Amino acid sequence: MSVERLSINQITVKDLSFEETVKSLAAHGIGWIGAWLGPVAECGVERAAKLLREHDVRVSSVCRAGFFTGANPDGGGLDRAANERAVDVTAALGSDVLYLVCGGIGDLGLPASREAVVEGIAELAPYAAAAGVRLAVEPLHPMMCADRSVVVTLDQALDIAGRFDPAHVGVAIDTFNVWWDPNLMAAIERAGERVIGYQVCDWLVPQPHPLFGRGLPGDGAIDLPAITRAVDAAGFTGPIEIEIFNEAVWAADPDDVLGAIIGGFDRSVLG
Amino acid sequence: MSVERLSINQITVKDLSFEETVKSLAAHGIGWIGAWLGPVAECGVERAAKLLREHDVRVSSVCRAGFFTGANPDGGGLDRAANERAVDVTAALGSDVLYLVCGGIGDLGLPASREAVVEGIAELAPYAAAAGVRLAVEPLHPMMCADRSVVVTLDQALDIAGRFDPAHVGVAIDTFNVWWDPNLMAAIERAGERVIGYQVCDWLVPQPHPLFGRGLPGDGAIDLPAITRAVDAAGFTGPIEIEIFNEAVWAADPDDVLGAIIGGFDRSVLG
Repeated sequence: MSVERLSINQITVKDLSFEETVKSLAAHGIGWIGAWLGPVAECGVERAAKLLREHDVRVSSVCRAGFFTGANPDGGGLDRAANERAVDVTAALGSDVLYLVCGGIGDLGLPASREAVVEGIAELAPYAAAAGVRLAVEPLHPMMCADRSVVVTLDQALDIAGRFDPAHVGVAIDTFNVWWDPNLMAAIERAGERVIGYQVCDWLVPQPHPLFGRGLPGDGAIDLPAITRAVDAAGFTGPIEIEIFNEAVWAADPDDVLGAIIGGFDRSVLG
Repeated sequence: MSVERLSINQITVKDLSFEETVKSLAAHGIGWIGAWLGPVAECGVERAAKLLREHDVRVSSVCRAGFFTGANPDGGGLDRAANERAVDVTAALGSDVLYLVCGGIGDLGLPASREAVVEGIAELAPYAAAAGVRLAVEPLHPMMCADRSVVVTLDQALDIAGRFDPAHVGVAIDTFNVWWDPNLMAAIERAGERVIGYQVCDWLVPQPHPLFGRGLPGDGAIDLPAITRAVDAAGFTGPIEIEIFNEAVWAADPDDVLGAIIGGFDRSVLG
Protein backbone atom coordinates (compact mmCIF):
# COMPACT_ATOMS: atom_id res chain seq x y z
CA MET A 1 0.00 0.00 0.00
CA SER A 2 1.35 3.39 -0.96
CA VAL A 3 -0.56 5.43 1.57
CA GLU A 4 2.08 8.13 2.00
CA ARG A 5 -0.23 10.57 0.19
CA LEU A 6 -3.44 9.41 1.85
CA SER A 7 -5.26 11.98 3.97
CA ILE A 8 -8.60 11.46 5.68
CA ASN A 9 -10.95 14.38 5.90
CA GLN A 10 -12.58 14.75 9.31
CA ILE A 11 -16.08 14.58 7.81
CA THR A 12 -15.46 11.02 6.62
CA VAL A 13 -15.39 9.92 10.27
CA LYS A 14 -17.52 12.75 11.53
CA ASP A 15 -18.73 11.03 14.69
CA LEU A 16 -15.15 10.89 16.00
CA SER A 17 -13.73 13.84 17.89
CA PHE A 18 -10.61 15.51 16.55
CA GLU A 19 -8.52 13.66 19.14
CA GLU A 20 -10.11 10.31 18.30
CA THR A 21 -9.59 10.94 14.62
CA VAL A 22 -5.91 11.79 14.98
CA LYS A 23 -5.31 8.71 17.12
CA SER A 24 -7.24 6.48 14.68
CA LEU A 25 -5.32 7.77 11.70
CA ALA A 26 -2.00 7.25 13.47
CA ALA A 27 -3.02 3.72 14.43
CA HIS A 28 -3.79 3.00 10.77
CA GLY A 29 -0.50 4.47 9.61
CA ILE A 30 -2.18 7.45 7.94
CA GLY A 31 -0.10 10.62 8.18
CA TRP A 32 -2.54 13.31 7.07
CA ILE A 33 -5.86 14.75 8.17
CA GLY A 34 -8.19 17.24 6.47
CA ALA A 35 -9.41 19.32 9.39
CA TRP A 36 -12.69 21.12 9.99
CA LEU A 37 -12.89 24.15 12.23
CA GLY A 38 -15.68 22.84 14.46
CA PRO A 39 -13.99 19.70 15.80
CA VAL A 40 -10.71 21.60 16.17
CA ALA A 41 -12.47 24.29 18.22
CA GLU A 42 -14.04 21.63 20.43
CA CYS A 43 -10.62 20.15 21.03
CA GLY A 44 -8.93 23.50 21.50
CA VAL A 45 -6.48 24.73 18.89
CA GLU A 46 -3.36 24.40 21.02
CA ARG A 47 -4.27 20.95 22.19
CA ALA A 48 -5.10 19.95 18.59
CA ALA A 49 -1.68 21.12 17.43
CA LYS A 50 -0.03 19.17 20.26
CA LEU A 51 -1.96 16.00 19.38
CA LEU A 52 -0.88 16.30 15.75
CA ARG A 53 2.78 16.59 16.78
CA GLU A 54 2.55 13.72 19.24
CA HIS A 55 1.02 11.40 16.67
CA ASP A 56 3.02 12.62 13.71
CA VAL A 57 -0.12 13.54 11.74
CA ARG A 58 -0.08 16.60 9.52
CA VAL A 59 -2.97 18.76 8.34
CA SER A 60 -3.46 18.63 4.58
CA SER A 61 -6.09 21.38 4.60
CA VAL A 62 -8.59 23.20 6.74
CA CYS A 63 -12.27 23.59 5.90
CA ARG A 64 -13.22 26.45 5.65
CA ALA A 65 -13.48 30.21 5.10
CA GLY A 66 -15.64 31.96 2.55
CA PHE A 67 -19.30 32.82 2.05
CA PHE A 68 -18.18 36.09 0.52
CA THR A 69 -21.59 36.66 -1.06
CA GLY A 70 -23.32 36.66 2.29
CA ALA A 71 -25.43 33.67 1.27
CA ASN A 72 -24.81 30.81 3.68
CA PRO A 73 -27.46 28.13 4.22
CA ASP A 74 -25.97 27.37 7.63
CA GLY A 75 -26.52 30.99 8.67
CA GLY A 76 -24.19 33.80 9.56
CA GLY A 77 -23.69 35.48 6.19
CA LEU A 78 -20.28 36.98 5.45
CA ASP A 79 -18.26 36.95 8.67
CA ARG A 80 -14.90 38.60 8.06
CA ALA A 81 -13.66 37.97 11.58
CA ALA A 82 -14.50 34.28 11.30
CA ASN A 83 -12.61 34.09 8.02
CA GLU A 84 -9.55 35.61 9.66
CA ARG A 85 -9.84 33.20 12.60
CA ALA A 86 -9.94 30.35 10.07
CA VAL A 87 -6.62 31.60 8.72
CA ASP A 88 -5.21 31.73 12.25
CA VAL A 89 -6.33 28.19 13.02
CA THR A 90 -4.87 26.90 9.74
CA ALA A 91 -1.50 28.42 10.58
CA ALA A 92 -1.67 27.23 14.20
CA LEU A 93 -2.22 23.66 12.99
CA GLY A 94 0.85 23.93 10.79
CA SER A 95 -1.13 23.80 7.56
CA ASP A 96 -0.88 26.22 4.67
CA VAL A 97 -4.08 25.35 2.77
CA LEU A 98 -7.44 26.88 3.70
CA TYR A 99 -10.41 25.86 1.57
CA LEU A 100 -12.88 28.50 0.46
CA VAL A 101 -16.58 27.80 0.07
CA CYS A 102 -17.38 30.98 -1.75
CA GLY A 103 -21.09 31.43 -1.01
CA GLY A 104 -24.36 31.13 -2.91
CA ILE A 105 -26.37 33.78 -4.68
CA GLY A 106 -26.63 36.90 -2.57
CA ASP A 107 -29.31 39.56 -2.74
CA LEU A 108 -27.81 41.12 -5.87
CA GLY A 109 -28.11 38.11 -8.16
CA LEU A 110 -25.64 35.78 -9.84
CA PRO A 111 -23.24 38.09 -11.73
CA ALA A 112 -22.83 40.45 -8.74
CA SER A 113 -22.40 37.49 -6.40
CA ARG A 114 -19.54 36.24 -8.55
CA GLU A 115 -17.93 39.68 -8.34
CA ALA A 116 -18.39 39.63 -4.57
CA VAL A 117 -16.34 36.43 -4.41
CA VAL A 118 -13.39 38.12 -6.09
CA GLU A 119 -13.73 41.10 -3.76
CA GLY A 120 -13.93 38.86 -0.71
CA ILE A 121 -10.81 36.95 -1.65
CA ALA A 122 -8.98 40.20 -2.37
CA GLU A 123 -9.87 41.34 1.14
CA LEU A 124 -8.82 38.10 2.89
CA ALA A 125 -5.73 37.24 0.83
CA PRO A 126 -3.29 39.72 2.42
CA TYR A 127 -4.20 38.51 5.90
CA ALA A 128 -3.72 34.90 4.83
CA ALA A 129 -0.48 35.66 3.02
CA ALA A 130 0.93 37.30 6.14
CA ALA A 131 0.12 34.10 8.05
CA GLY A 132 1.70 31.89 5.41
CA VAL A 133 -1.68 30.38 4.48
CA ARG A 134 -2.78 29.83 0.89
CA LEU A 135 -6.45 30.19 -0.01
CA ALA A 136 -7.88 27.34 -2.09
CA VAL A 137 -10.80 28.37 -4.31
CA GLU A 138 -12.98 25.27 -4.53
CA PRO A 139 -15.57 24.94 -7.27
CA LEU A 140 -18.60 23.15 -5.83
CA HIS A 141 -20.99 21.06 -7.87
CA PRO A 142 -23.45 23.18 -9.90
CA MET A 143 -26.30 21.74 -7.85
CA MET A 144 -24.98 23.91 -5.00
CA CYS A 145 -24.72 27.10 -7.05
CA ALA A 146 -27.76 28.82 -5.55
CA ASP A 147 -27.07 28.23 -1.89
CA ARG A 148 -23.38 27.43 -1.29
CA SER A 149 -21.04 28.42 -4.09
CA VAL A 150 -21.46 30.50 -7.20
CA VAL A 151 -18.05 29.08 -8.18
CA VAL A 152 -18.94 25.85 -9.97
CA THR A 153 -16.26 24.91 -12.49
CA LEU A 154 -12.51 24.51 -12.29
CA ASP A 155 -12.04 26.97 -15.15
CA GLN A 156 -14.04 29.56 -13.27
CA ALA A 157 -12.01 28.95 -10.10
CA LEU A 158 -8.84 29.39 -12.16
CA ASP A 159 -10.14 32.63 -13.64
CA ILE A 160 -10.64 33.88 -10.08
CA ALA A 161 -7.38 32.54 -8.67
CA GLY A 162 -5.55 33.96 -11.68
CA ARG A 163 -6.17 37.45 -10.39
CA PHE A 164 -3.92 36.76 -7.41
CA ASP A 165 -0.34 35.72 -6.73
CA PRO A 166 -0.11 31.92 -7.03
CA ALA A 167 1.91 31.91 -3.83
CA HIS A 168 -1.22 33.01 -2.00
CA VAL A 169 -4.30 31.83 -3.90
CA GLY A 170 -4.80 28.48 -5.62
CA VAL A 171 -7.59 26.07 -6.40
CA ALA A 172 -8.90 22.88 -4.83
CA ILE A 173 -10.18 19.99 -6.91
CA ASP A 174 -12.85 17.72 -5.42
CA THR A 175 -13.76 14.86 -7.74
CA PHE A 176 -17.44 14.87 -6.68
CA ASN A 177 -17.77 18.51 -7.69
CA VAL A 178 -15.99 18.54 -11.03
CA TRP A 179 -16.00 15.03 -12.56
CA TRP A 180 -18.88 15.75 -14.98
CA ASP A 181 -17.13 18.74 -16.62
CA PRO A 182 -16.45 18.11 -20.33
CA ASN A 183 -13.47 20.47 -20.04
CA LEU A 184 -12.08 18.94 -16.83
CA MET A 185 -8.88 17.42 -18.15
CA ALA A 186 -7.91 20.58 -20.02
CA ALA A 187 -8.73 22.67 -16.96
CA ILE A 188 -6.53 20.51 -14.72
CA GLU A 189 -3.66 20.87 -17.16
CA ARG A 190 -4.27 24.61 -17.24
CA ALA A 191 -4.30 24.72 -13.44
CA GLY A 192 -0.71 23.51 -13.03
CA GLU A 193 0.83 24.90 -9.86
CA ARG A 194 -2.48 26.48 -8.87
CA VAL A 195 -3.67 23.08 -7.62
CA ILE A 196 -3.08 23.20 -3.88
CA GLY A 197 -5.75 20.78 -2.73
CA TYR A 198 -7.14 17.49 -4.03
CA GLN A 199 -10.13 15.70 -2.50
CA VAL A 200 -11.50 12.39 -3.65
CA CYS A 201 -14.77 10.51 -3.31
CA ASP A 202 -17.07 8.75 -5.73
CA TRP A 203 -20.48 9.69 -7.19
CA LEU A 204 -23.01 7.05 -6.20
CA VAL A 205 -25.68 5.95 -8.68
CA PRO A 206 -28.38 6.52 -7.75
CA GLN A 207 -27.58 9.31 -5.32
CA PRO A 208 -28.83 8.10 -1.92
CA HIS A 209 -29.34 11.63 -0.56
CA PRO A 210 -29.60 15.15 -2.05
CA LEU A 211 -26.45 16.29 -0.22
CA PHE A 212 -24.79 13.10 1.02
CA GLY A 213 -24.49 11.11 -2.18
CA ARG A 214 -20.76 10.52 -1.97
CA GLY A 215 -19.25 7.07 -1.85
CA LEU A 216 -15.99 5.30 -1.14
CA PRO A 217 -13.59 5.39 -4.09
CA GLY A 218 -14.56 2.65 -6.52
CA ASP A 219 -18.21 2.51 -5.47
CA GLY A 220 -19.51 5.03 -8.01
CA ALA A 221 -19.40 6.45 -11.52
CA ILE A 222 -16.20 8.52 -11.47
CA ASP A 223 -12.98 7.38 -13.14
CA LEU A 224 -10.92 8.52 -10.15
CA PRO A 225 -7.54 7.17 -11.32
CA ALA A 226 -7.88 9.18 -14.56
CA ILE A 227 -8.43 12.38 -12.57
CA THR A 228 -5.60 11.56 -10.16
CA ARG A 229 -3.24 11.03 -13.08
CA ALA A 230 -4.22 14.40 -14.53
CA VAL A 231 -3.77 16.12 -11.17
CA ASP A 232 -0.37 14.49 -10.77
CA ALA A 233 0.61 15.47 -14.31
CA ALA A 234 -0.30 19.06 -13.48
CA GLY A 235 2.44 18.93 -10.87
CA PHE A 236 0.52 18.35 -7.67
CA THR A 237 2.47 16.10 -5.30
CA GLY A 238 0.56 16.79 -2.08
CA PRO A 239 -1.75 14.65 0.01
CA ILE A 240 -4.92 13.16 -1.43
CA GLU A 241 -7.85 13.70 0.92
CA ILE A 242 -10.70 11.24 1.07
CA GLU A 243 -13.77 13.29 1.95
CA ILE A 244 -17.05 11.40 2.11
CA PHE A 245 -20.50 12.70 3.03
CA ASN A 246 -22.59 9.55 3.30
CA GLU A 247 -24.97 8.39 6.00
CA ALA A 248 -24.08 4.70 5.58
CA VAL A 249 -20.37 5.48 5.90
CA TRP A 250 -21.06 7.57 8.99
CA ALA A 251 -23.07 4.71 10.52
CA ALA A 252 -20.24 2.22 9.98
CA ASP A 253 -17.35 1.49 12.37
CA PRO A 254 -14.69 4.15 11.64
CA ASP A 255 -11.96 1.50 11.80
CA ASP A 256 -13.72 -0.45 9.07
CA VAL A 257 -14.12 2.70 6.98
CA LEU A 258 -10.44 3.56 7.31
CA GLY A 259 -9.48 -0.03 6.51
CA ALA A 260 -11.63 -0.01 3.38
CA ILE A 261 -10.16 3.30 2.23
CA ILE A 262 -6.61 2.08 2.76
CA GLY A 263 -7.36 -1.21 1.06
CA GLY A 264 -8.80 0.45 -2.04
CA PHE A 265 -6.49 3.45 -2.28
CA ASP A 266 -3.97 2.02 -4.75
CA ARG A 267 -6.53 0.53 -7.10
CA SER A 268 -9.42 3.01 -6.88
CA VAL A 269 -7.66 6.33 -6.40
CA LEU A 270 -4.09 6.06 -7.71
CA GLY A 271 -4.99 3.53 -10.42
CA MET B 1 -50.36 39.60 -21.65
CA SER B 2 -48.14 38.67 -24.56
CA VAL B 3 -48.69 34.95 -24.42
CA GLU B 4 -48.25 34.35 -28.16
CA ARG B 5 -44.97 32.59 -27.41
CA LEU B 6 -46.16 30.71 -24.32
CA SER B 7 -46.12 26.94 -24.51
CA ILE B 8 -47.00 24.58 -21.69
CA ASN B 9 -45.09 21.35 -21.41
CA GLN B 10 -47.31 18.36 -20.69
CA ILE B 11 -45.33 17.47 -17.55
CA THR B 12 -46.37 20.76 -15.92
CA VAL B 13 -49.94 19.47 -15.79
CA LYS B 14 -49.01 15.83 -15.77
CA ASP B 15 -52.21 14.55 -14.19
CA LEU B 16 -54.18 15.76 -17.21
CA SER B 17 -54.53 13.53 -20.24
CA PHE B 18 -53.32 14.85 -23.60
CA GLU B 19 -56.89 15.66 -24.57
CA GLU B 20 -57.59 17.46 -21.29
CA THR B 21 -54.35 19.39 -21.63
CA VAL B 22 -55.07 20.55 -25.17
CA LYS B 23 -58.57 21.66 -24.18
CA SER B 24 -57.30 23.46 -21.07
CA LEU B 25 -54.63 25.29 -23.02
CA ALA B 26 -57.15 26.35 -25.66
CA ALA B 27 -59.53 27.55 -22.94
CA HIS B 28 -56.72 29.69 -21.48
CA GLY B 29 -55.78 31.11 -24.88
CA ILE B 30 -52.48 29.24 -24.98
CA GLY B 31 -51.51 28.14 -28.48
CA TRP B 32 -48.62 25.76 -27.85
CA ILE B 33 -47.98 22.48 -26.07
CA GLY B 34 -44.75 20.64 -25.36
CA ALA B 35 -45.75 17.02 -25.86
CA TRP B 36 -44.53 13.79 -24.24
CA LEU B 37 -44.75 10.50 -26.05
CA GLY B 38 -46.58 8.65 -23.26
CA PRO B 39 -49.73 10.80 -23.06
CA VAL B 40 -49.80 11.07 -26.87
CA ALA B 41 -49.67 7.28 -27.17
CA GLU B 42 -52.49 6.94 -24.64
CA CYS B 43 -54.57 9.35 -26.69
CA GLY B 44 -53.61 7.79 -30.01
CA VAL B 45 -51.42 9.73 -32.41
CA GLU B 46 -54.07 10.37 -35.05
CA ARG B 47 -56.60 11.47 -32.47
CA ALA B 48 -53.99 13.70 -30.83
CA ALA B 49 -53.25 15.38 -34.16
CA LYS B 50 -56.96 15.91 -34.75
CA LEU B 51 -57.43 17.44 -31.27
CA LEU B 52 -54.57 19.84 -31.93
CA ARG B 53 -56.11 20.99 -35.19
CA GLU B 54 -59.57 21.33 -33.70
CA HIS B 55 -58.33 23.47 -30.83
CA ASP B 56 -55.71 25.40 -32.79
CA VAL B 57 -52.90 24.27 -30.53
CA ARG B 58 -49.48 23.57 -32.01
CA VAL B 59 -46.72 21.33 -30.70
CA SER B 60 -43.58 23.26 -29.78
CA SER B 61 -41.55 20.10 -29.17
CA VAL B 62 -41.77 16.42 -28.40
CA CYS B 63 -39.99 14.74 -25.49
CA ARG B 64 -38.05 12.50 -26.31
CA ALA B 65 -35.61 10.27 -28.13
CA GLY B 66 -32.08 9.44 -27.02
CA PHE B 67 -30.37 7.27 -24.43
CA PHE B 68 -27.68 6.60 -27.01
CA THR B 69 -25.26 5.34 -24.35
CA GLY B 70 -27.61 2.57 -23.32
CA ALA B 71 -27.82 3.97 -19.80
CA ASN B 72 -31.45 4.77 -19.00
CA PRO B 73 -32.65 4.84 -15.39
CA ASP B 74 -36.19 4.21 -16.58
CA GLY B 75 -35.07 0.98 -18.27
CA GLY B 76 -34.83 -0.11 -21.86
CA GLY B 77 -31.33 0.96 -22.81
CA LEU B 78 -30.75 2.17 -26.36
CA ASP B 79 -33.87 1.45 -28.38
CA ARG B 80 -33.31 2.49 -31.99
CA ALA B 81 -36.82 1.55 -33.07
CA ALA B 82 -38.32 3.65 -30.28
CA ASN B 83 -36.18 6.60 -31.34
CA GLU B 84 -37.47 6.29 -34.90
CA ARG B 85 -41.05 6.04 -33.65
CA ALA B 86 -40.44 9.25 -31.68
CA VAL B 87 -39.48 10.93 -34.95
CA ASP B 88 -42.63 9.61 -36.60
CA VAL B 89 -44.84 10.87 -33.78
CA THR B 90 -43.19 14.29 -33.88
CA ALA B 91 -43.87 14.60 -37.58
CA ALA B 92 -47.41 13.26 -37.20
CA LEU B 93 -48.16 15.94 -34.61
CA GLY B 94 -46.95 18.61 -37.03
CA SER B 95 -43.89 19.47 -34.95
CA ASP B 96 -40.32 19.65 -36.17
CA VAL B 97 -38.46 19.59 -32.83
CA LEU B 98 -37.63 16.35 -31.04
CA TYR B 99 -35.71 16.65 -27.77
CA LEU B 100 -32.84 14.28 -27.11
CA VAL B 101 -32.00 13.03 -23.63
CA CYS B 102 -28.66 11.58 -24.54
CA GLY B 103 -28.15 8.96 -21.82
CA GLY B 104 -25.96 8.49 -18.77
CA ILE B 105 -22.65 6.72 -18.40
CA GLY B 106 -22.70 3.42 -20.18
CA ASP B 107 -20.54 0.42 -19.43
CA LEU B 108 -17.52 1.93 -21.16
CA GLY B 109 -17.13 5.00 -18.96
CA LEU B 110 -17.58 8.72 -19.49
CA PRO B 111 -15.40 9.53 -22.54
CA ALA B 112 -16.71 6.56 -24.55
CA SER B 113 -20.26 7.38 -23.52
CA ARG B 114 -19.84 10.86 -24.90
CA GLU B 115 -18.61 9.38 -28.17
CA ALA B 116 -21.61 7.06 -28.22
CA VAL B 117 -23.89 10.10 -28.13
CA VAL B 118 -22.34 11.48 -31.30
CA GLU B 119 -22.61 8.09 -32.97
CA GLY B 120 -26.23 7.72 -31.89
CA ILE B 121 -27.20 11.10 -33.28
CA ALA B 122 -25.36 10.36 -36.53
CA GLU B 123 -27.43 7.22 -36.83
CA LEU B 124 -30.79 8.86 -36.10
CA ALA B 125 -30.29 12.17 -37.92
CA PRO B 126 -30.88 10.96 -41.50
CA TYR B 127 -34.15 9.31 -40.48
CA ALA B 128 -35.25 12.48 -38.72
CA ALA B 129 -34.16 14.71 -41.59
CA ALA B 130 -36.20 12.62 -44.02
CA ALA B 131 -39.24 13.20 -41.79
CA GLY B 132 -38.59 16.94 -41.53
CA VAL B 133 -37.81 16.66 -37.83
CA ARG B 134 -34.89 18.44 -36.18
CA LEU B 135 -33.10 16.80 -33.26
CA ALA B 136 -32.53 19.06 -30.25
CA VAL B 137 -29.49 18.11 -28.16
CA GLU B 138 -30.40 19.10 -24.62
CA PRO B 139 -27.71 19.49 -21.99
CA LEU B 140 -29.11 18.27 -18.69
CA HIS B 141 -27.96 19.52 -15.30
CA PRO B 142 -24.60 18.01 -14.24
CA MET B 143 -26.34 16.30 -11.33
CA MET B 144 -27.87 14.00 -13.96
CA CYS B 145 -24.58 13.22 -15.73
CA ALA B 146 -24.19 9.70 -14.37
CA ASP B 147 -27.67 8.39 -15.05
CA ARG B 148 -29.46 10.48 -17.69
CA SER B 149 -27.20 12.63 -19.83
CA VAL B 150 -23.46 12.82 -20.29
CA VAL B 151 -24.21 16.06 -22.17
CA VAL B 152 -24.22 18.67 -19.41
CA THR B 153 -23.28 22.09 -20.80
CA LEU B 154 -24.54 24.18 -23.68
CA ASP B 155 -21.02 24.44 -25.10
CA GLN B 156 -20.74 20.67 -25.12
CA ALA B 157 -24.15 20.36 -26.82
CA LEU B 158 -22.99 22.88 -29.42
CA ASP B 159 -19.78 20.93 -30.01
CA ILE B 160 -21.92 17.88 -30.70
CA ALA B 161 -24.55 19.65 -32.80
CA GLY B 162 -21.77 21.37 -34.74
CA ARG B 163 -20.87 18.08 -36.35
CA PHE B 164 -24.21 18.03 -38.14
CA ASP B 165 -26.16 20.19 -40.57
CA PRO B 166 -27.95 22.94 -38.62
CA ALA B 167 -31.05 22.19 -40.66
CA HIS B 168 -31.24 18.82 -38.91
CA VAL B 169 -29.57 19.04 -35.49
CA GLY B 170 -29.77 21.90 -33.00
CA VAL B 171 -29.74 22.43 -29.26
CA ALA B 172 -32.37 22.94 -26.59
CA ILE B 173 -31.87 25.30 -23.69
CA ASP B 174 -33.64 24.54 -20.41
CA THR B 175 -32.99 27.20 -17.78
CA PHE B 176 -32.99 24.68 -14.90
CA ASN B 177 -30.19 22.74 -16.54
CA VAL B 178 -27.85 25.53 -17.61
CA TRP B 179 -28.44 28.62 -15.48
CA TRP B 180 -25.38 28.02 -13.24
CA ASP B 181 -22.89 27.92 -16.15
CA PRO B 182 -20.35 30.76 -15.93
CA ASN B 183 -20.07 30.62 -19.72
CA LEU B 184 -23.82 30.53 -20.38
CA MET B 185 -24.29 33.93 -21.99
CA ALA B 186 -21.35 33.43 -24.34
CA ALA B 187 -22.58 29.95 -25.19
CA ILE B 188 -26.07 31.23 -26.04
CA GLU B 189 -24.55 33.87 -28.32
CA ARG B 190 -22.40 31.18 -29.90
CA ALA B 191 -25.46 28.97 -30.38
CA GLY B 192 -27.25 31.39 -32.71
CA GLU B 193 -29.49 29.53 -35.13
CA ARG B 194 -28.70 26.23 -33.41
CA VAL B 195 -31.22 27.10 -30.68
CA ILE B 196 -34.37 25.24 -31.67
CA GLY B 197 -35.94 24.75 -28.24
CA TYR B 198 -36.25 26.88 -25.11
CA GLN B 199 -37.72 25.63 -21.84
CA VAL B 200 -38.18 27.68 -18.72
CA CYS B 201 -38.66 27.00 -15.04
CA ASP B 202 -37.04 28.31 -11.89
CA TRP B 203 -34.55 26.74 -9.45
CA LEU B 204 -36.13 26.56 -6.02
CA VAL B 205 -34.02 27.27 -2.91
CA PRO B 206 -33.83 24.99 -1.11
CA GLN B 207 -34.57 22.25 -3.62
CA PRO B 208 -37.70 20.47 -2.32
CA HIS B 209 -36.86 17.17 -4.05
CA PRO B 210 -33.76 15.59 -5.62
CA LEU B 211 -35.41 15.48 -9.05
CA PHE B 212 -38.46 17.68 -8.77
CA GLY B 213 -36.96 20.93 -7.52
CA ARG B 214 -38.33 23.13 -10.28
CA GLY B 215 -40.57 26.07 -9.61
CA LEU B 216 -42.86 28.51 -11.36
CA PRO B 217 -40.97 31.36 -13.04
CA GLY B 218 -40.16 33.97 -10.44
CA ASP B 219 -40.23 31.58 -7.49
CA GLY B 220 -36.54 30.69 -7.53
CA ALA B 221 -32.95 31.80 -8.01
CA ILE B 222 -32.66 32.11 -11.80
CA ASP B 223 -32.66 35.44 -13.60
CA LEU B 224 -35.02 34.13 -16.27
CA PRO B 225 -35.56 37.41 -18.16
CA ALA B 226 -31.77 37.73 -18.63
CA ILE B 227 -31.60 34.28 -20.19
CA THR B 228 -34.69 34.93 -22.35
CA ARG B 229 -33.13 38.15 -23.63
CA ALA B 230 -29.95 36.27 -24.55
CA VAL B 231 -31.92 33.50 -26.28
CA ASP B 232 -33.90 36.13 -28.20
CA ALA B 233 -30.72 37.98 -29.14
CA ALA B 234 -29.31 34.72 -30.51
CA GLY B 235 -32.17 34.78 -32.99
CA PHE B 236 -34.65 32.36 -31.46
CA THR B 237 -38.21 33.49 -32.08
CA GLY B 238 -40.03 30.26 -31.26
CA PRO B 239 -42.32 29.26 -28.43
CA ILE B 240 -41.16 29.36 -24.82
CA GLU B 241 -42.11 26.18 -23.00
CA ILE B 242 -42.85 26.21 -19.30
CA GLU B 243 -41.76 22.79 -18.03
CA ILE B 244 -42.08 22.22 -14.29
CA PHE B 245 -41.36 19.08 -12.30
CA ASN B 246 -42.72 19.86 -8.85
CA GLU B 247 -44.98 17.87 -6.57
CA ALA B 248 -46.74 20.95 -5.19
CA VAL B 249 -47.49 22.19 -8.71
CA TRP B 250 -48.79 18.76 -9.67
CA ALA B 251 -51.04 18.72 -6.59
CA ALA B 252 -52.57 22.09 -7.47
CA ASP B 253 -55.59 22.71 -9.71
CA PRO B 254 -54.26 22.79 -13.29
CA ASP B 255 -56.40 25.83 -14.08
CA ASP B 256 -54.76 27.69 -11.22
CA VAL B 257 -51.31 26.62 -12.41
CA LEU B 258 -52.02 27.80 -15.95
CA GLY B 259 -53.46 31.05 -14.63
CA ALA B 260 -50.37 31.68 -12.51
CA ILE B 261 -48.05 30.96 -15.43
CA ILE B 262 -49.97 33.30 -17.73
CA GLY B 263 -50.11 35.99 -15.05
CA GLY B 264 -46.37 35.90 -14.45
CA PHE B 265 -45.16 35.30 -18.00
CA ASP B 266 -44.48 38.92 -18.97
CA ARG B 267 -42.71 39.84 -15.76
CA SER B 268 -40.92 36.63 -14.80
CA VAL B 269 -40.00 35.13 -18.16
CA LEU B 270 -39.91 37.90 -20.76
CA GLY B 271 -38.79 40.57 -18.28
